[in-house]
Amino acid sequence: MGEPAVDARPDLAAWSCPLPLVDSPNIVMGHGGGGAMSAELVEHLFLPAFGATGDLTDSAVLDVAGIRVAFSTDSFVVRPLFFPGGSIGDLAVNGTVNDLAMSGARPLFLSTAFILEEGTALAELGQVAQALGKAAELAGVRLVTGDTKVVDAGHGDGVYINTAGIGLVPEGVDIRPGRARVGDAILVSGDIGVHGVAVLSCREGLEFGTTVTSDTAALHGLVAAMLETGADVHVLRDPTRGGLAASLNEIARTAGVGVEIVERQVPVPAEVADACSILGLDPFYVANEGKLVAFVPPQDAEQVLAAMRAHPLGAGAAVIGSVVEPHPGMVVARTGLGGTRVVDLPVGEQLPRIC
Amino acid sequence: MGEPAVDARPDLAAWSCPLPLVDSPNIVMGHGGGGAMSAELVEHLFLPAFGATGDLTDSAVLDVAGIRVAFSTDSFVVRPLFFPGGSIGDLAVNGTVNDLAMSGARPLFLSTAFILEEGTALAELGQVAQALGKAAELAGVRLVTGDTKVVDAGHGDGVYINTAGIGLVPEGVDIRPGRARVGDAILVSGDIGVHGVAVLSCREGLEFGTTVTSDTAALHGLVAAMLETGADVHVLRDPTRGGLAASLNEIARTAGVGVEIVERQVPVPAEVADACSILGLDPFYVANEGKLVAFVPPQDAEQVLAAMRAHPLGAGAAVIGSVVEPHPGMVVARTGLGGTRVVDLPVGEQLPRIC
Repeated sequence: MGEPAVDARPDLAAWSCPLPLVDSPNIVMGHGGGGAMSAELVEHLFLPAFGATGDLTDSAVLDVAGIRVAFSTDSFVVRPLFFPGGSIGDLAVNGTVNDLAMSGARPLFLSTAFILEEGTALAELGQVAQALGKAAELAGVRLVTGDTKVVDAGHGDGVYINTAGIGLVPEGVDIRPGRARVGDAILVSGDIGVHGVAVLSCREGLEFGTTVTSDTAALHGLVAAMLETGADVHVLRDPTRGGLAASLNEIARTAGVGVEIVERQVPVPAEVADACSILGLDPFYVANEGKLVAFVPPQDAEQVLAAMRAHPLGAGAAVIGSVVEPHPGMVVARTGLGGTRVVDLPVGEQLPRIC
Repeated sequence: MGEPAVDARPDLAAWSCPLPLVDSPNIVMGHGGGGAMSAELVEHLFLPAFGATGDLTDSAVLDVAGIRVAFSTDSFVVRPLFFPGGSIGDLAVNGTVNDLAMSGARPLFLSTAFILEEGTALAELGQVAQALGKAAELAGVRLVTGDTKVVDAGHGDGVYINTAGIGLVPEGVDIRPGRARVGDAILVSGDIGVHGVAVLSCREGLEFGTTVTSDTAALHGLVAAMLETGADVHVLRDPTRGGLAASLNEIARTAGVGVEIVERQVPVPAEVADACSILGLDPFYVANEGKLVAFVPPQDAEQVLAAMRAHPLGAGAAVIGSVVEPHPGMVVARTGLGGTRVVDLPVGEQLPRIC
């Protein structure tokens, strides 16, 4: 047989879009950080390459034969696979369940797809799968379809998991970042920064003792309790990669409104503050896996807060700020000293492979 | 701070299930081959670990508020990313679209999740994304939600992609492996073994010249044409990993019926036969990415075959055998010499990372 056959690459010139934020022709860790570099990759590379097939949101609300179906996906590459308070199996369920819940959907079904590295211990995989199954049971979602691929040793890291989820959006519910309005109260469901610190505490070369365990949890029950008040919840967001800062910035930009938060009203546990000060991190940028941010009309804030506090996953809920007319698209924090500081969208990645 | 915090591993003893087929405590490449070892991993590890949350099928048909929704997922780890006739981007769309189509569903929406290796060229990622977008456009499905993760260099292989898909199952359609019945005619939509040979032809260290290009294609249009005949199609399957042999074995076992095929009626192109004989492969076990196998009642076979041949993706369709009473759960081929041979479920992996 003759020459090796040529491959089917499309024309390079046709896709080529500059990525202004990174002076590299290659993928860097920051492209996976959930901040400005991630957004840029979607905006400048994926969307043009995909054509005008619409925005790629965390969770899409679709019309399927007249039914409003929420659909979401996430891959999980957290390292290590087990950390204080949870595992990649927990995250794989709760992460996708929460993406669905943030559109007000009731999560119903999950797919699970594993990319396994050759040489991974079956016992470890069994533990991961067991944690995943238990989390699905706790969340009340059914695992209905799956896939397993194996890659050669040195081309994976034990276990990577993707889950996709389907949920049902109740009649009359319309929750999305674009609905933030001037005057909205901004609530958070509890202590922030906990997941990131828990994972870091057991990272190789960085081990430190702490009583902080991951907050990984499925939040759809909390959301249901909030909606049962009858309040017109405008926006919900789970501040995972990039933390509270990334979520607030994304909402401010999408809705074109200003966000003002009061630093000392944001619940940061002392252990998280301590760990962050040692590691040089800002807790506002540290990932959460069992918290949500809510934007609600001011007249509904009291009852939504009460409903959150009455739920086990919202016991530490607090009002942390409001939506304001000035500085649209920008997040500003009032500091303890009476000044203000801009809380910008993170550019890259503070903590790689946190979920 | 004191001792490193302990992790949250569940009890090892509780999951521990022996995997009789492999004498190894670790994952091996064969666990991703779509054969007996893959099935064993699902049956002995995933299902017990997940609890009794039902079977994990290639494509689930679900009741969502009274609507029959098909839901499927696949990860793609093919190497190299581009090969004659296609790319990982094409496979990521067509693979999931075909899983949906094999339940008779009309595919509507896809999610896309990328796991990128640090250092991957943005140009290469752009080409992959462009191929994916083009394949989605061709298939008429919308990319509606996505995710991007980045892993450190040496923990990935350029680009891994997961897609999940949602489709709508038409009224009255009930297509699944369990519906195979004695007497059913078995049809294949065209030449087999093409995708696997195309990918192998450009593998590092194995390059050989061939005119064979991958058959990667979305098959839902062909399925719709088959259903328009009004025939009661019992089973559809796209013979990907493990090839025709794995698909026929899976159907025979699920339905508890015997499958008999006539070797010389199975369309194997000369180039595929040549490549397989050089490489020591059996074409029945080589992956396809744009072919389907159909089981239909004998009285419907003629008109379904005619409908397939009238469609561009079924021009080479042929009747290759039938469902028989003897040897339930087993696939037997009648050879050219008038003898018979058992076509067993492949155990491990003939061709790793083929999709």
